[in-house]
Amino acid sequence: MCHVQGAVLSKRVAWPNARRRASRSLPLIYRRRALSHPSYIRNRLTSSYERLEFLGDALLDFLITAHIFEQHQNLNPGELTDLRSALVNNVTFASYTVKLGLQKYLCSQFNPVLDSAIINFVEYQMQRNHVMTEDVLYLIDEEDCKIAEYVEVPKVLSDIFEALAGAIYLDSGGDAAAVWRVYYSIMRRELTEFAANVPWQPVRLLFENIHACPVFGDCPIFFMKNFYQPHVKWQHVSYVKPVWRCRKAQKVDEDIPRMMVPVTVTKAGVQYTVHGFGRNKAQAKRAAAKLALKMLNL
Amino acid sequence: MCHVQGAVLSKRVAWPNARRRASRSLPLIYRRRALSHPSYIRNRLTSSYERLEFLGDALLDFLITAHIFEQHQNLNPGELTDLRSALVNNVTFASYTVKLGLQKYLCSQFNPVLDSAIINFVEYQMQRNHVMTEDVLYLIDEEDCKIAEYVEVPKVLSDIFEALAGAIYLDSGGDAAAVWRVYYSIMRRELTEFAANVPWQPVRLLFENIHACPVFGDCPIFFMKNFYQPHVKWQHVSYVKPVWRCRKAQKVDEDIPRMMVPVTVTKAGVQYTVHGFGRNKAQAKRAAAKLALKMLNL
Repeated sequence: MCHVQGAVLSKRVAWPNARRRASRSLPLIYRRRALSHPSYIRNRLTSSYERLEFLGDALLDFLITAHIFEQHQNLNPGELTDLRSALVNNVTFASYTVKLGLQKYLCSQFNPVLDSAIINFVEYQMQRNHVMTEDVLYLIDEEDCKIAEYVEVPKVLSDIFEALAGAIYLDSGGDAAAVWRVYYSIMRRELTEFAANVPWQPVRLLFENIHACPVFGDCPIFFMKNFYQPHVKWQHVSYVKPVWRCRKAQKVDEDIPRMMVPVTVTKAGVQYTVHGFGRNKAQAKRAAAKLALKMLNL
Repeated sequence: MCHVQGAVLSKRVAWPNARRRASRSLPLIYRRRALSHPSYIRNRLTSSYERLEFLGDALLDFLITAHIFEQHQNLNPGELTDLRSALVNNVTFASYTVKLGLQKYLCSQFNPVLDSAIINFVEYQMQRNHVMTEDVLYLIDEEDCKIAEYVEVPKVLSDIFEALAGAIYLDSGGDAAAVWRVYYSIMRRELTEFAANVPWQPVRLLFENIHACPVFGDCPIFFMKNFYQPHVKWQHVSYVKPVWRCRKAQKVDEDIPRMMVPVTVTKAGVQYTVHGFGRNKAQAKRAAAKLALKMLNL
């Protein structure tokens, strides 16, 4: 049993379980505050969700940490960190927001870019039947380094998930156990499934291989529009530019900037450089690390 | 009053206040666990501090977050984040460890590099009378960009500070309030002082100035030995290498690698590039941001 599950649950915060009940039993003042985007100037009664998000962010991190610490004595510290990273991140939290339909209650000023990003992510999650993945939706296939799907995840969606945790905490008089009861019921499935098969963090794993001497390089930006999908060969010795080859003439029709990160690793005394791609540096670094681990047969 | 200060304080965890009492009243099993470095193979009774640190890290983050959220209603979300960053970081935690003298109880395998780093930091803090600074001890003077002092802060020192929080939490049966009572007594002074004068985070502040369009560049490494202290002029238009000028012929006699990060900002339609220096990229980026803000008169 988790250490934080000790207090009596306040009836007022016996909140979700069923999607339709989401955000019903919180008092109006907390609900409005937790769901008001900073742009929503029509809300003159409360401040925006930012302060609640600040609190809820740290609270959820602690509750999930305490839970996995308690429940998974068999996991080593590295696995615990990986498990927490898979559970506590903007993509996972945004996915829960969409699964519960909380984005419908978000109050924000009209912003076509934000609205379109939210709609895209909601549609994407509905198509996938609200399945949860790791924190990177930019999937990279190690076989031929193909650029798979990328869907932007608006941070506002994870912000309100965190802000609502902060709101429940305040409403329950600072009862972390009350928050955990609510959030445990939402996250129960992933808490079990991710723990059974911990999503590993490739960058950390790569650095743990001290004999591979991994060195990440600089990160150039380029645009994918009208480019054919690249096939990047593993390069022998660093400082060699990647080879671009048309594979299946599969056009990438997005005009979004991509980052490329090279990583040089040593295998049996020989240096190899592989390249990873992503929307941002972290994603590109992760992709590069995955390729490097595969090359090292790890 | 902080929300987490609700429960009755267990006598067994009525721990510091006075330095000499540090780590006295925790049961031996938790004390040994919280103070055993992973390298310490002679400890066959318990595991190392890593799991406790994993728990204590999230717990301290939450406790400090909850405290500043509650106590400082006047701070905006950005200031709250800056305040937390100044309080929750490896340097601040390591400074408390040294102030309490907890490093004396650390059990680790003989490691001359680690031992020397710990001794250096302890001496540095003693000379400064255990004063707490922001999370970056690499101080940069905006006037002439002079390279001031740099002392490495061994992560192990902050790890045991966090691990002991985890140990008290477990020993008190999962009572976060008990942990907070102990840590509040340790951190009281900085919790007040930092809040009265929030240490601002220059990178975040710079990005908040959307009209300045800040763009950070790549980060070359160079060695400082036998170099004269550079005076870097603000460069007009980017892609111009920094001008090195001898100021006071003050020799920097360290043979340590330095990073340089350029940042380009726009002021009244004209682009300017300034350069920051640091031991690592984060420090160099922060130094560059500070210079850029000064140039923008912010």
